[in-house]
Amino acid sequence: MKAIIVASGGMDSATAAYQYAHRGYELHLVGFDYGQRHVKELSALMQVGGRLNAPVSIIDLKSLGEFLGRNSLTGDNTVPDGHYREETMRQTVVPNRNAIMINIAAGIAQAENAERVVTGVHSGDHYIYPDCRPQFVRALAESISYATEGAVALDAPFLHLTKADIVKEGARLNLPYEITWSCYKGGAQHCGTCGTCFERKESFNVAGVPDPTNYIQEGFEWYKGSLPVERAGLPVGGEMES
Amino acid sequence: MKAIIVASGGMDSATAAYQYAHRGYELHLVGFDYGQRHVKELSALMQVGGRLNAPVSIIDLKSLGEFLGRNSLTGDNTVPDGHYREETMRQTVVPNRNAIMINIAAGIAQAENAERVVTGVHSGDHYIYPDCRPQFVRALAESISYATEGAVALDAPFLHLTKADIVKEGARLNLPYEITWSCYKGGAQHCGTCGTCFERKESFNVAGVPDPTNYIQEGFEWYKGSLPVERAGLPVGGEMES
Repeated sequence: MKAIIVASGGMDSATAAYQYAHRGYELHLVGFDYGQRHVKELSALMQVGGRLNAPVSIIDLKSLGEFLGRNSLTGDNTVPDGHYREETMRQTVVPNRNAIMINIAAGIAQAENAERVVTGVHSGDHYIYPDCRPQFVRALAESISYATEGAVALDAPFLHLTKADIVKEGARLNLPYEITWSCYKGGAQHCGTCGTCFERKESFNVAGVPDPTNYIQEGFEWYKGSLPVERAGLPVGGEMES
Repeated sequence: MKAIIVASGGMDSATAAYQYAHRGYELHLVGFDYGQRHVKELSALMQVGGRLNAPVSIIDLKSLGEFLGRNSLTGDNTVPDGHYREETMRQTVVPNRNAIMINIAAGIAQAENAERVVTGVHSGDHYIYPDCRPQFVRALAESISYATEGAVALDAPFLHLTKADIVKEGARLNLPYEITWSCYKGGAQHCGTCGTCFERKESFNVAGVPDPTNYIQEGFEWYKGSLPVERAGLPVGGEMES
């Protein structure tokens, strides 16, 4: 049994890798260099592979950068601070990124006789990124099945889970989250204020799992925006001090 | 109206480009360098773009070559001679190639506000290449539509046509087929014996359109295999001399 993990060095794909290793799969972790500012995530990916004793390959897609347009992950725009679910976060959308990466991984799976391609997309991604939604994943899985004549299946084990659920699963599998990287700004340390740092903090908080990350800006006190209603239970802003 | 043409420099995508130009679309021709032996097709693609006064971009996917495995298009294996529909032609399958290319083109379409991505796949491709079959194209079109929130549609205008039908369409549009390139061997001249040269000859022959190609090996007399039943009407081998 072999699985190709579409991996970034972030929490979700690292947890997927740990889960499939735990299930007894031979792994090949496949990451992508698409000119992202936070290329540091690829060093994190190497560490994840090292811990699992799994090979890591980085596919060079930098030549795509100039064609897929300017956005805050690959271009000169500033990475927006704030909650991940805000409209400004749309700046971080790289057109059709997941389909491109997952289809390359599916080609590798077929070449290596791996039965599965695994993506770590989760329900928290659905709001902003259309290529993380269930109907997209279903259509993509179908196209991969047809293209490989049924030899390769696409798994999205976290599709209907939250990032907090993922953290709980990773904690159960003893995944050392300090080796993973989330921050879109890609500095020396996690900034603690960009959308993906916000989401990282939030997921540990909601999961009740200690967050091992060293943020430049700890906590949520700095955040002046209002949270979406469904997150109102979160200890954020003034609430944390009450 | 703008269309991204997934283009190779071969007959099918050149005809698609001519067709969409004729329909009034602004075009962007997107080709791929995936380490193919017949990289010469990309020079042909430049010429197609030149005739249509359309920009051509070549995406560098050579880094994928080592991962997608050895096959006769990218590796050291010999390109097989003979009819395109034979089992030996499976050597020319690059895993999931169409899905990868079409999805990259869809990302470019979204970045450039183009409404359509066009692929030249046709019914003659279905036999060998699973990622050219109608059910695959349908699933892929769905995944693109979801990923782009309906902004980009996938067109496959030749999906249910034969290559001979395509040649008729190209002739109607005054496409100078001598600028296109088919031969998988990628020599100075079309070899005339590999599967794709065979198919090229056959399509002009069946369409009743003069074939402007200079082949090293003209005609079908060299071919010693038996043709599939449905091609029995073709003037091949001894029949040509009768």
